Amino acid sequence: MPGKSPSHPRAGRLVVLGGQRGVRPSGVVWLVGAGPGDPDLLTVKALRLLACADVVVHDRLTPQPILALAGPDARLIDVGKRKARHTLPQDDINALLVGLALDGLTVVRLKGGDPFVFGRGGEELQACRAAGVQCHVVPGVSAALAAGAAAGAPLTHRGLAQAVTFVTGHAASGKDPELDWASLARPNQTVVIYMGLTTAPAIAARLIEAGRAPSTPALVVEKASLPDERRVITTLSALGRDVQGLDGPAILIVGEVAALAQAQGVPHLVSRRRA
Amino acid sequence: MPGKSPSHPRAGRLVVLGGQRGVRPSGVVWLVGAGPGDPDLLTVKALRLLACADVVVHDRLTPQPILALAGPDARLIDVGKRKARHTLPQDDINALLVGLALDGLTVVRLKGGDPFVFGRGGEELQACRAAGVQCHVVPGVSAALAAGAAAGAPLTHRGLAQAVTFVTGHAASGKDPELDWASLARPNQTVVIYMGLTTAPAIAARLIEAGRAPSTPALVVEKASLPDERRVITTLSALGRDVQGLDGPAILIVGEVAALAQAQGVPHLVSRRRA
Repeated sequence: MPGKSPSHPRAGRLVVLGGQRGVRPSGVVWLVGAGPGDPDLLTVKALRLLACADVVVHDRLTPQPILALAGPDARLIDVGKRKARHTLPQDDINALLVGLALDGLTVVRLKGGDPFVFGRGGEELQACRAAGVQCHVVPGVSAALAAGAAAGAPLTHRGLAQAVTFVTGHAASGKDPELDWASLARPNQTVVIYMGLTTAPAIAARLIEAGRAPSTPALVVEKASLPDERRVITTLSALGRDVQGLDGPAILIVGEVAALAQAQGVPHLVSRRRA
Repeated sequence: MPGKSPSHPRAGRLVVLGGQRGVRPSGVVWLVGAGPGDPDLLTVKALRLLACADVVVHDRLTPQPILALAGPDARLIDVGKRKARHTLPQDDINALLVGLALDGLTVVRLKGGDPFVFGRGGEELQACRAAGVQCHVVPGVSAALAAGAAAGAPLTHRGLAQAVTFVTGHAASGKDPELDWASLARPNQTVVIYMGLTTAPAIAARLIEAGRAPSTPALVVEKASLPDERRVITTLSALGRDVQGLDGPAILIVGEVAALAQAQGVPHLVSRRRA
């Protein structure tokens, strides 16, 4: 495939670092945060890069309206992962990105949310570095920020939460997540759990065991920022029960700030319960 | 001042909720994350709202190129805070936002980074709710995400950090920040400190006292994403010394991931030291 010269008119001011490695113009990998799903929550930079990419490498859950922002000649490659069935292992994704860039292409690797918050972007960056491929990272709106914004629940708040901790609820099949429960149960902080829907009952039980009050407010936002977003406002003790029926990507927010989340004006709120 | 009707052509599809409270068109407050400073890291939604705002209420540090994106007729109000001298106390900012909205205006309250991560956006949202003013939150790229992206240091990374915690280093004059040092010193997590430049020596000392290894990698990113961004790659034990000379808004990142930050291709890196 022909490489794109760094002075290609579509490249604009963002793509200026190619072509320094020899006669053949060298490609570049952009690890780009796609935000939570609403195309309006893409950054301007992500939008520009999508428009000038030769190849867009994306996950299964990347919404179609975002992919539609790629240029008409761009090749789209879905390396999407399902929970129990990796379409493409991480090493193969790394090799794919490196190979495309060595072919001289401008590669946009779209990551849901932010590439560096549970996105495995660090591994892709390391693979590029090891292969001598230029790689740049464009931050994005992480799902936790979108979830808080949508529900009106600040992640930090004077008097309620002086810290916010992000963890992942992902666990090996049949096991509980291996997290530092004692630290997460400490007061005056918000705990945000990514990918925690399946393990929500275990997470709630462990946090309560470790000392967090069963009455601690909890908020679940499924598909934050998307048209079919749903929210559940509940408590830690009822969390495991109240996530039943949700199956999309979801963010769990545990802490006093979750009580500030509002149903008002929110047609898709599915429940507001107190245990 | 004349109110803007919800069907005003500039309002687009984003501003559809005004005019429901009575005869007078009611205003609306948008709490909008402005991202870390680079206008390219604004979201598309923030860009649109800036273009249709009647009033933009912003902080002292909001970069001029972002303010320049407001419409030509928009009124700009600087409620900026300095560290030791609040230009406008938070209660006055709350009252200002509410008053402008009750005048029927479309108000964009621009917050650096994300409104709900150390932005006091929750307080502004509560004030609007209490006054019956429509208020919506638009998430933004928080400074920590921009700092990690710029330096090539993921905030989470397999084998190095399974959690990331955001805290603020702000403290009452002459005091140390009051943080949960024992939790922050636990291994296998990244600790991100906002507004921690002044208290960096105390933060480092407390973390080491609480058990975090003095050799723990640390990264400081000043003015992340801006043209005069500077970075320091150091260790926890040398952190207090190595932040001398920095005075802009900065993010401290403490944890093994900070060792992945790179000098390569970074003309404004100021030092790379090992204690």
